[in-house]
Amino acid sequence: MSHSISGRYRKWQELAQKELRGSPLSQLQTHHPSGITYKSVYTAEDLKSGAALADYPGLPPFTRGPWASMYPGKPWTIRQYAGFSSAEESNKFYRDNLAAGQKGLSVAFDLPTHRGYDSDHPRAAADVGKAGVAVDSVEDMKILFAGIPLDKMSVSMTMNGAVLPVLASYIIAAEEQGVKACQLRGTLQNDILKEYLVRNTFIYPPKASMRIVGDILTYTSRMMPRFHGISISGYHMQEAGADSVMELAYTLANGLAYLRLALDQGLGIDEFAPRLSFFFGVGMDFFMEIAKLRAARWLWHDLLLPFAPENPRSLMLRTHTQTSGYSLSAQDPYNNIIRTTIQAMAAALGGTQSLHTNAFDEALALPTPLSARLARNTQLILQKETDLCATADPLGGSYFMERLTAEVYSKAQALIDEVEACGGMVEALSSGLVKGRIETAAAAQQARVDCGADQLVGVNCYPPPPSEKPVEVLEVDVRAVLEVQTRKLKQLRLQRDESSVQSSLNRLRNAAQQQKPLMPVVLEAMRVRATVGECSQALEQVFTRYQPTVSVVSSVYAASYKSDGGQLQDICQRTRSFAERSGRRPRILLVKLGQDGHDRGIKVVATALADFGFDVDLGPLFAMASEAAKQALENDVHIVGVSSLAGGHKTLVQELRSELDAGGGERIKIIAGGVIPPQDYELLQSMGCQAIFGPGTCMLECADTLLRLLDA
Amino acid sequence: MSHSISGRYRKWQELAQKELRGSPLSQLQTHHPSGITYKSVYTAEDLKSGAALADYPGLPPFTRGPWASMYPGKPWTIRQYAGFSSAEESNKFYRDNLAAGQKGLSVAFDLPTHRGYDSDHPRAAADVGKAGVAVDSVEDMKILFAGIPLDKMSVSMTMNGAVLPVLASYIIAAEEQGVKACQLRGTLQNDILKEYLVRNTFIYPPKASMRIVGDILTYTSRMMPRFHGISISGYHMQEAGADSVMELAYTLANGLAYLRLALDQGLGIDEFAPRLSFFFGVGMDFFMEIAKLRAARWLWHDLLLPFAPENPRSLMLRTHTQTSGYSLSAQDPYNNIIRTTIQAMAAALGGTQSLHTNAFDEALALPTPLSARLARNTQLILQKETDLCATADPLGGSYFMERLTAEVYSKAQALIDEVEACGGMVEALSSGLVKGRIETAAAAQQARVDCGADQLVGVNCYPPPPSEKPVEVLEVDVRAVLEVQTRKLKQLRLQRDESSVQSSLNRLRNAAQQQKPLMPVVLEAMRVRATVGECSQALEQVFTRYQPTVSVVSSVYAASYKSDGGQLQDICQRTRSFAERSGRRPRILLVKLGQDGHDRGIKVVATALADFGFDVDLGPLFAMASEAAKQALENDVHIVGVSSLAGGHKTLVQELRSELDAGGGERIKIIAGGVIPPQDYELLQSMGCQAIFGPGTCMLECADTLLRLLDA
Repeated sequence: MSHSISGRYRKWQELAQKELRGSPLSQLQTHHPSGITYKSVYTAEDLKSGAALADYPGLPPFTRGPWASMYPGKPWTIRQYAGFSSAEESNKFYRDNLAAGQKGLSVAFDLPTHRGYDSDHPRAAADVGKAGVAVDSVEDMKILFAGIPLDKMSVSMTMNGAVLPVLASYIIAAEEQGVKACQLRGTLQNDILKEYLVRNTFIYPPKASMRIVGDILTYTSRMMPRFHGISISGYHMQEAGADSVMELAYTLANGLAYLRLALDQGLGIDEFAPRLSFFFGVGMDFFMEIAKLRAARWLWHDLLLPFAPENPRSLMLRTHTQTSGYSLSAQDPYNNIIRTTIQAMAAALGGTQSLHTNAFDEALALPTPLSARLARNTQLILQKETDLCATADPLGGSYFMERLTAEVYSKAQALIDEVEACGGMVEALSSGLVKGRIETAAAAQQARVDCGADQLVGVNCYPPPPSEKPVEVLEVDVRAVLEVQTRKLKQLRLQRDESSVQSSLNRLRNAAQQQKPLMPVVLEAMRVRATVGECSQALEQVFTRYQPTVSVVSSVYAASYKSDGGQLQDICQRTRSFAERSGRRPRILLVKLGQDGHDRGIKVVATALADFGFDVDLGPLFAMASEAAKQALENDVHIVGVSSLAGGHKTLVQELRSELDAGGGERIKIIAGGVIPPQDYELLQSMGCQAIFGPGTCMLECADTLLRLLDA
Repeated sequence: MSHSISGRYRKWQELAQKELRGSPLSQLQTHHPSGITYKSVYTAEDLKSGAALADYPGLPPFTRGPWASMYPGKPWTIRQYAGFSSAEESNKFYRDNLAAGQKGLSVAFDLPTHRGYDSDHPRAAADVGKAGVAVDSVEDMKILFAGIPLDKMSVSMTMNGAVLPVLASYIIAAEEQGVKACQLRGTLQNDILKEYLVRNTFIYPPKASMRIVGDILTYTSRMMPRFHGISISGYHMQEAGADSVMELAYTLANGLAYLRLALDQGLGIDEFAPRLSFFFGVGMDFFMEIAKLRAARWLWHDLLLPFAPENPRSLMLRTHTQTSGYSLSAQDPYNNIIRTTIQAMAAALGGTQSLHTNAFDEALALPTPLSARLARNTQLILQKETDLCATADPLGGSYFMERLTAEVYSKAQALIDEVEACGGMVEALSSGLVKGRIETAAAAQQARVDCGADQLVGVNCYPPPPSEKPVEVLEVDVRAVLEVQTRKLKQLRLQRDESSVQSSLNRLRNAAQQQKPLMPVVLEAMRVRATVGECSQALEQVFTRYQPTVSVVSSVYAASYKSDGGQLQDICQRTRSFAERSGRRPRILLVKLGQDGHDRGIKVVATALADFGFDVDLGPLFAMASEAAKQALENDVHIVGVSSLAGGHKTLVQELRSELDAGGGERIKIIAGGVIPPQDYELLQSMGCQAIFGPGTCMLECADTLLRLLDA
């Protein structure tokens, strides 16, 4: 290698130019939605311009991993998130998995529990036991962990809204098992900020919610030294449309907000920061996701330095990761096994501490035993059959990876600076800046898929043959769960000491009003068998229930749809001609019914249809069928579109049809979209649902169907 | 980062030591079967000790890729190997795939074609159309490519034994389509050396076979400038048990042998070397396999330098890769989708030029349309949905990867030196050195799995529930194919000019005797519609048919089985006590019937049973059922074990049972093992097969079953 560096580069350029046969070299670059450009080759030269090379894992700035021994010492923890139906059913499922070698549990609660409604609340009906387990009281929590020794088990709980009564139930269930709070190990999600940004499973307005977060941080830091009181979560931002850089930036910005909250509560930085945990999604951009996890550790270290902690662990970011749910397709669902494997590898190469791998049928329904086993096996195979765990940070030093890590770091830093300039995330929430950025990214992504600029196998290219039979999916019988939960609640209310319950709920209301610590009072209430719903309602009476204003980004879809095929113009033209014929534009009310707050889909549909010329009403989140029907009738819409991602579709569509008909809206058409098993299509159609759109539906095809329905 | 390098290292050591709680740091190392040790962390220090860093892809020594633009310019070619049943059926399959976007074809021939038998030959019966397509003459080749323009299509043909008549048929089929030989693009495997080492689909003895290889190299180099006359293949060595370093070393050693052969034939280095192509397997050791492909390019470059080529392309290794068949399990077969994804990623990160991904059901049977589509989708998803193709050699510069690449390079170099010291691979063949090394590795690997030192998910840990229903598999109706082929052969022989055929076959015999070029004479014979079998037989009359001596490595299994559970001792004790009771040791004849030469399985079983104290006879390869029965009766064995990997099991087991019974061997038990769909188990049992062992069977369990059978 006698040539000079620039000589080698010229030689490479010359060869590449020849291979491209006249196309410009710039064609070899790839542009990522985050604004980062991949070069077609990286060399040692790329390490000279700013990328700090961290030499050992376990040493600051932790880019190569938080621990010195990393996976050669102990592989990441396989932590599958699961829960459905009743506490009895979920307990059986957990015990089976623990017997099959699973370590640790990660509990999914149903949406009514998240939103602070008891199972017998009228707003809960369609969602009880659907996307998680229903927990109404300490009694349910005791059943959930029956036979599972809580002093030995690490339990992760995804809970944000009703976090006070749920944590309290857990503590008391353990107490009644003979296990003290200080012995409990695990993690509570308790990350309310991202709920306002994306997932919407909040109960109270932001300020009150932050007070609750602070309350729990103080309680867990002081009373539960082995328990992580918060898991700062970017996962849901990625699911909602954020690119890797946004996800990283806004998650760390939320982390800073919680840090300041804790300091305001009087906690010391070293009392609190060493037990923070994070939660990121891992999508299909393999290298970008690895770089994100490496940059996350480095950047968090640098963000924490100014707080001058004495314990090096205060500077250390540890994270759980989960493969991307959004990337899974309902079309040719076995493809999802491939996708999840790729994502799991990125999580491992990024140095995650624990991982949940999604089941391949989750774009259709809840996992079956087969799909859940395969999801778990993905991780087992990586750990046991490959050399992936043989060395720490195997990509460390790679010209490309070090450079990409540095670029993700600096782009994320810039987004954090912007939030900090608003005064931090709590203040930035009200401006809508962050939410708008994420929703814009989601609409642009959909447009790229719809116009074929992004190719998804089985979705917009390489379709499976139409003859393919659908995969078998799991069905939870919501009526049975509802019946069980209602019976247990009735029994609970009969057996408890009602006056103790009522006085404890009074004390809770007072504590809320008087800015006193809430956790001790909630513990008291739950101990005398108040319910999750009752505690939540008591607080709601003081704090109020938060109803967010819904808004839709506009023109993003049309601007991102790059194609000269004229399909977009054609749809817009048909919408205009409908308006000319009918005297008004086609009007659609898009609604989320029940307690499911996942609104990426409905917002993307709203944006696209508005860009096509539809008159789009976006209903409030968490509507009951009767409320949606009322709005549809008042606004005299042509169509109501129901978005369902949590399994409540059958109950809700039927109710909506009855309510519309009862109000004289027989001619109003119903369509549905979201995670709906093909096996349910026929039933929904028999209930009067005139079109059903699964994940991955092209917006132009959706509009085409709507226009045909209107013409029919 | 103010500390010194050694200070950082000491700090890391201290932390790691603490995390290990007293265990020695050496516990963080991982030992690979190749003898390479993975350290738990690599740093910039590891680059200083010998690893040459190649800076640009497309520049020598090509470690970072043969082309300057690599995947950002054009992703690897998705090249799925396929063929089954008749030429008519395979043609339809190819045309469907081409219509669905596949580029290029890769033809699998059935075993009788490989071994130079026409479909109506008595030794062919069980294998016609089973593991590939049956091609008996130019007429079949014309049907195979009907409607496929051969001037535009790159066609890869896996053919080694009957390489002369098969290539000739292809050339003439193209000619009769109006396409000249000089227009044809594609690759012929034509790598006979590895057949003697591992796969056994040879026809003639090594020297004669090498003459044929040389003949084809000369012909294709001179007459088919766009066609690769050889693909030097390590894949089958990996399948047979070779570790990554062995596979690399012996493949390149074979490459050197072919290079010398070509030079001896009078070809110039630059006339021949630029169009060499290679073929490697990619197994589960993710990083090791990436390092292998990087080291392959670097080492081949260095091996070729002494030949002083003028064209830089002569120094460039380009390779096709295929995911590992051996790593797939019959148990919980969906796990194989995960395994194949991991392997495909390693192939891509290693910089392969084309790739075949296996279908998940190949440990059970031939792929179904669903499993074949998923295998292809694995590659499409990697190319279209991830950033894997965004930059060349993404791992370049990684401390770990550069170091590992250098270690694989030097270990492989040492093995090549050993072969060269014997005078090259052709000479080394007769010593049995290389074959013995590979078989030893296979037996040791089996022992590691059987004792649990290597864990395979679903095989020796985490079994699927017994209730799981088997996956649907594809069944080729061999009788129907046999009938079609026999009819076409009869018609061909009626319609052709018999005297032209016979005189061309005479000329072929003469050319063989007189050391004249064979390819022109074979072309002549095939043009007048001689068959693949007739040409092969004419050459066999001069060269003879090669029957290898079979031998079994001993004591390897027992030595590699590390466990203190006493199971091994227990089996040995039971074998001894059988011998004491019966006056002789349990005697088993292990046979491969039909034309399937894959003998990894049978040899591992032989080694293990011998180590347990069985008296093991290993039958000759390619036996007919009558021959195996004769040997069993003569040797008075207790059991005949049939190994089947190519789908001929039903026909062959039935024949064997009849032959044994006819010879008075009713008491001799039959067992079977290999790639046998569970759906066939019942039928085989009804034919008198008393036990069936799928891939992944533990040898101790196998022996236990045999001893029970003997006691019954």
